[in-house]
Amino acid sequence: MSTRDEDFHGIYPYLVSPMDERGRVDELALRRLVRHLLDEGVHGLSPLGSTGEVMYLTPGQQETIVRTTIEEAAGRVPVVAGVAAYASAAAATQAAAMTSWGVDGVIGIQLVYGPPPLDGVVDYFHALATATDLPVVLYTNPRLGADIPLTALERIVADDNVRYLKDASGVTGKLLSIQSVLGERLKFFAASAHLPTAVLDLGGVGWMAGPACVVPAAATALWDAHLRGDLARRARLQAEIWPLNALFTRHGLAPLIKLALDEIGYPCGDPVRPQLPAPDEVRPELRKVLAGIAEAVAS
Amino acid sequence: MSTRDEDFHGIYPYLVSPMDERGRVDELALRRLVRHLLDEGVHGLSPLGSTGEVMYLTPGQQETIVRTTIEEAAGRVPVVAGVAAYASAAAATQAAAMTSWGVDGVIGIQLVYGPPPLDGVVDYFHALATATDLPVVLYTNPRLGADIPLTALERIVADDNVRYLKDASGVTGKLLSIQSVLGERLKFFAASAHLPTAVLDLGGVGWMAGPACVVPAAATALWDAHLRGDLARRARLQAEIWPLNALFTRHGLAPLIKLALDEIGYPCGDPVRPQLPAPDEVRPELRKVLAGIAEAVAS
Amino acid sequence: MSTRDEDFHGIYPYLVSPMDERGRVDELALRRLVRHLLDEGVHGLSPLGSTGEVMYLTPGQQETIVRTTIEEAAGRVPVVAGVAAYASAAAATQAAAMTSWGVDGVIGIQLVYGPPPLDGVVDYFHALATATDLPVVLYTNPRLGADIPLTALERIVADDNVRYLKDASGVTGKLLSIQSVLGERLKFFAASAHLPTAVLDLGGVGWMAGPACVVPAAATALWDAHLRGDLARRARLQAEIWPLNALFTRHGLAPLIKLALDEIGYPCGDPVRPQLPAPDEVRPELRKVLAGIAEAVAS
Amino acid sequence: MSTRDEDFHGIYPYLVSPMDERGRVDELALRRLVRHLLDEGVHGLSPLGSTGEVMYLTPGQQETIVRTTIEEAAGRVPVVAGVAAYASAAAATQAAAMTSWGVDGVIGIQLVYGPPPLDGVVDYFHALATATDLPVVLYTNPRLGADIPLTALERIVADDNVRYLKDASGVTGKLLSIQSVLGERLKFFAASAHLPTAVLDLGGVGWMAGPACVVPAAATALWDAHLRGDLARRARLQAEIWPLNALFTRHGLAPLIKLALDEIGYPCGDPVRPQLPAPDEVRPELRKVLAGIAEAVAS
Repeated sequence: MSTRDEDFHGIYPYLVSPMDERGRVDELALRRLVRHLLDEGVHGLSPLGSTGEVMYLTPGQQETIVRTTIEEAAGRVPVVAGVAAYASAAAATQAAAMTSWGVDGVIGIQLVYGPPPLDGVVDYFHALATATDLPVVLYTNPRLGADIPLTALERIVADDNVRYLKDASGVTGKLLSIQSVLGERLKFFAASAHLPTAVLDLGGVGWMAGPACVVPAAATALWDAHLRGDLARRARLQAEIWPLNALFTRHGLAPLIKLALDEIGYPCGDPVRPQLPAPDEVRPELRKVLAGIAEAVAS
Repeated sequence: MSTRDEDFHGIYPYLVSPMDERGRVDELALRRLVRHLLDEGVHGLSPLGSTGEVMYLTPGQQETIVRTTIEEAAGRVPVVAGVAAYASAAAATQAAAMTSWGVDGVIGIQLVYGPPPLDGVVDYFHALATATDLPVVLYTNPRLGADIPLTALERIVADDNVRYLKDASGVTGKLLSIQSVLGERLKFFAASAHLPTAVLDLGGVGWMAGPACVVPAAATALWDAHLRGDLARRARLQAEIWPLNALFTRHGLAPLIKLALDEIGYPCGDPVRPQLPAPDEVRPELRKVLAGIAEAVAS
Repeated sequence: MSTRDEDFHGIYPYLVSPMDERGRVDELALRRLVRHLLDEGVHGLSPLGSTGEVMYLTPGQQETIVRTTIEEAAGRVPVVAGVAAYASAAAATQAAAMTSWGVDGVIGIQLVYGPPPLDGVVDYFHALATATDLPVVLYTNPRLGADIPLTALERIVADDNVRYLKDASGVTGKLLSIQSVLGERLKFFAASAHLPTAVLDLGGVGWMAGPACVVPAAATALWDAHLRGDLARRARLQAEIWPLNALFTRHGLAPLIKLALDEIGYPCGDPVRPQLPAPDEVRPELRKVLAGIAEAVAS
Repeated sequence: MSTRDEDFHGIYPYLVSPMDERGRVDELALRRLVRHLLDEGVHGLSPLGSTGEVMYLTPGQQETIVRTTIEEAAGRVPVVAGVAAYASAAAATQAAAMTSWGVDGVIGIQLVYGPPPLDGVVDYFHALATATDLPVVLYTNPRLGADIPLTALERIVADDNVRYLKDASGVTGKLLSIQSVLGERLKFFAASAHLPTAVLDLGGVGWMAGPACVVPAAATALWDAHLRGDLARRARLQAEIWPLNALFTRHGLAPLIKLALDEIGYPCGDPVRPQLPAPDEVRPELRKVLAGIAEAVAS
């Protein structure tokens, strides 16, 4: 394991999956977006998350997106790609494939078709973790049924390379409950549902979320303010970024982020069907939100 | 379209997916089970449903199971195989592939990662239905988020080959609400969550469910009693079969059905991980239930 | 205990609670409605259910409604009034008071403020049942969190006067699961969420629901058809009555039933705030539904 | 309106409702607890919340508890008592009664029996707010169905005396969403489900929760650390207090807080049936948690 393993931190945009009009991955748009995000100083890249519409892509599209991201990142920052499966074996297969493509870590969620037994939750993440020697970020999202009860979490961390947790419940107290039991064993990334500052104040190591695709400068400014202890600026940035959440809650995550990228000059095509584009009527409100964010960065 | 298209009716066991100890499809076990079910007089076969652990199989395993089922059925009864996808395009791809393999119909469910917009529900089923000229059975399961609001259903039936609905809500009144609006346009199959007799009394054309894998004689006897108007026998059979539901509600659908098949001499291996085998301790209660069913058939 | 105890059966309209413009119980409207329902041949009356807005009434209003109903019924049919409380002691107090006012039975639901422990569910219904020697109807409604797990039910029926269950889940299979374990110990009433015929076919003894307030002739005709074994007429009546459910699902139970009563000449005032009247725009659709029902009765 | 109205802030223990073995309010225990809390420096008292088992008390018991609390507080700190009702009129009646008894404010939740229409939510809180000229704290708890959509909140704050919000969702981002729209119009109190520090960092004015009954010294120390900007101490205290949440999540709020009060020498009797006492087996774990909290206060 490389020393860089220890080092996931900061702003990891959840990448959209750019598609052309014929439903193929738009590699040029993806490369251009990645270069832009790197220029804005993000600390890592996370393809194939929910913003990345992972569930809606074919295995071939998934491979193209991960390989292209890795190529374009060219080692400047870690690439941590999403694993999402129902079967334990499928999670292992995906994690192994990504490792062979050259990712720096994987972030895994368990898809569920009815609530799985506790032993089944442990089995899934154990299969995933032993299929790679890279660091694993656990991804939980109770609204999708994809949660890990604390008693399962205690067993899952028996695999040494399980190092991080990104939880999308929005309930920050849940993280403190985990910390009460597991101490520093798991490091936390804020998801877009959480107030990043609340997670950072628990010792969180970064923010991994779709909005950072659209406002990378603000997200990295928030992180820098955090590191410098400039709590007022950190809070100001968070308050201005947050209204993006209200927008994607209403219009869907990928639809809104893709609309916003088009708005700022990084068109990535439409969401994958049956997801539908956010309506153009959202643009004025979106512009206003983006202007507020830009102002906060400049201030 | 063949005349047989019009003819889906009666007992369609939701087939388990037999696996060997190394995680490969156990074709011999599958063939043996199919022959047994045909000998017991079932009217169709439905591989790749929830009993069939469709979400936990690789595309290759899915193909093996469908092709093997078709071969062994050899045209004696229709084979209606399950389509389950997130993307509209993936549903279309699966439906087209199954059509090319020779199925007689498809039964489709929409997997959701967060609630889809109404237009997205329509888009998904339209993509599925236009990818095949075979009859399509809609499969809804609100507990999995996989539902079709009535206003979407009204638009989905614009595709002529959408002919049937199998709803797993267990709320029979929902079917009557649909019938109030759509009349005879959609025919209903009972799912295992419904009382079959309640669905049949609304004009339902059959019962498509996992338990029929285990008790095909009782299921066909129930159907025959229904056709003859022998309501007392129909009710008696239903009452004896129903306790299987309590068992799989507690232990999981595929885990319980696989245990029961082992119990009656048709071993099909373990469920696919992270699903776990039902514990052996269930066998005595299971035997008692099966004995009650056998007695009702014989009476 | 009187012999009449054994005799709850047939059509029990869930009575609305008529209110005047100043928020007082409109006793005259209630008496007129009760006389009308008795004339139409209903078999019992059930004030203070959800149609009766029980949760929105003061204790004094509740007493007025129950006493008025009893007076006007004058022993012609049983009056089974609703008990709804959080505390076990409050349930007992209400049941005892109603007994002293002269009801013939009580129908009890447990209000929950967060899910209660199993022992707490048993405690509540035991307190209720021992506070009266009248027959008790259990009322469960899982959507309100007011459910009774089967393991609790097995203990609750230790109180002899607990004799009936009205379940509002709409999942008829749940009743068969109960019957598998408790046999004939509990008799079932259909609630408005269930297809009455499906419950009657399990041996159900009647239908206790709001719509019977509006269409008592159709409801009793359905019951008569059931007793005569005229399944075609029973099904026809059910199919015509059912669209009322779609209407109150959209507009609220009490708001829709009160609008419908106004429509047929038995105005009972507005729902109790914060419930709001159903909009007048519903009337044309409502009239159409009522016409269909009238036609089915006449046919 | 007095100038003190503007001044709700700091630590408001949600008071338990002490009961004797015969189910009467134990006034002596309540007085003793109130004196203890005042001695420990709490900034207000909040009887009749969920910790106070408000839903399980009779109107008479509620009055006794509020009047006794007011008497014993004797003006040293504000008493903000809970209003919880289904009917708008009942909320108004309760708020008016409490005002006449001498409370300093009311905190109101809307009980729901099925989801109310938006206009009904507004109606309820408008009725409550206009029934008193005291400050009103809105209390939302989505898990109980008691939520206020943002579009309703915008209308509810038209009543000037609606000044505070205590939200029990645990999702701190929800508060920032409200703040984005309403600015400083509503002040926030943290509920026990929230990390208090996360709410305070959004400008929250205090913490109103059951655990402060048990650990008032730690809660006020947390508040003092907050005011002094001693973030390390604030975080340490929060981390030590938090495990109480895991305990009451498992055993119930009132049951656990009553057990803990007994443990520290302020016995308040058993919870009100059907709530049941937390088992004695919890005491060792509870002692350990309390010891950790005491150590953090002393450090």
